[in-house]
Amino acid sequence: MTKSIVLLSGGMDSLVCAGLACRDEKDVSFVHMNYGQKTSVRERKSFDAIADHYKIPAEKRKVIDMTFLKQIGGSSLTDDAITVKDYKGDSDIIPDSYVPFRNSIILSLAVSWAERISAQKLYIGANYEDSPGYPDCRPSYYDAFNKVIKEGTKSADITILTPVISMKKKEIVMKGQELQVPWHLSWSCYQSSDRSCGVCDSCALRLRGFKEAGIVDPIEYK
Amino acid sequence: MTKSIVLLSGGMDSLVCAGLACRDEKDVSFVHMNYGQKTSVRERKSFDAIADHYKIPAEKRKVIDMTFLKQIGGSSLTDDAITVKDYKGDSDIIPDSYVPFRNSIILSLAVSWAERISAQKLYIGANYEDSPGYPDCRPSYYDAFNKVIKEGTKSADITILTPVISMKKKEIVMKGQELQVPWHLSWSCYQSSDRSCGVCDSCALRLRGFKEAGIVDPIEYK
Repeated sequence: MTKSIVLLSGGMDSLVCAGLACRDEKDVSFVHMNYGQKTSVRERKSFDAIADHYKIPAEKRKVIDMTFLKQIGGSSLTDDAITVKDYKGDSDIIPDSYVPFRNSIILSLAVSWAERISAQKLYIGANYEDSPGYPDCRPSYYDAFNKVIKEGTKSADITILTPVISMKKKEIVMKGQELQVPWHLSWSCYQSSDRSCGVCDSCALRLRGFKEAGIVDPIEYK
Repeated sequence: MTKSIVLLSGGMDSLVCAGLACRDEKDVSFVHMNYGQKTSVRERKSFDAIADHYKIPAEKRKVIDMTFLKQIGGSSLTDDAITVKDYKGDSDIIPDSYVPFRNSIILSLAVSWAERISAQKLYIGANYEDSPGYPDCRPSYYDAFNKVIKEGTKSADITILTPVISMKKKEIVMKGQELQVPWHLSWSCYQSSDRSCGVCDSCALRLRGFKEAGIVDPIEYK
């Protein structure tokens, strides 16, 4: 039987991936990465709540501590000396929340875990609209990474799936509605852990997506 | 000016890479990975001694703690519950010292660091003869990984170099002699930290390489 893993940060994109995987796959595990971001405790809470919602048993939940990323630094998400800037509208400039090559580190660990538990599919909520400035959100990047998996694993039978990569945020919201995902349990804000700030990159994109879809975002904002 | 990084475990393959980089490059940094292996303290000692030998200043030495790999497990190198087996001769069977997709995790972190310090070259002592069973030591794996770097980094200007990948151990020893690398400072044993065991995979391959090259290995064996 095919085993699948969902990389679930707790944000809207990975939540929709979780909804898709739980609809389409028989054996689903959820993996969460704690990389020492400012909102890590809040995101973990969302992960647990979403896993409860989808009735994922304890042995199929894995939290990987990635606080070692602080050793690399260079990002407002992991380096306490750098402040998260407010969102200033779309641009091709790579935001200060960029950790060099971060998705490759996350994917490598997730694939290692997938090989360990003999999973064949790895769902990740990468989304290109999110981040035209992030090179590791492009479809061509995932194609290249899938090639590395074929070359670099024993089984050569693990594939990364990016079901929302080419969707606009509006479409992700509409897909989530169709799947009846628990939006109220998700968390997107990079900055606050009580009520969402509404102004960081991640909040701004989320709010625009809900607005364009004509759906009320059930989480609270400041 | 081109900046280069050498991934230096302290073993013979990475030592020869260090010798090559220090001969051919102007600005060289050394990176060491401590992934909680049984001989990690001994390997770190070799790293420091080799960095001293090549007069690498403190700000160009980076030790990355990868003990988080224990979260994945599945290998005799990182999982205390698994014993390192003695070497039983060449085979295509993947040894128990295999950490799933380990080189991808190491490379991802090293590339993240390379992007952080604006380095363009990353030397790694991968060697195919070492490990016909390790899929992530094949040249095709590194070609695929270089493609991921092009796709997934801002600069798209970092290349992994694998100068010893197709050499036999004998040739690596001969190359090291030509470069006058400090063999006496290196460490290869997976099992012991005082005198090398001489029987683990890594010791067996090293001893054979020196024997075939007709050179005396200056480190002590049990």
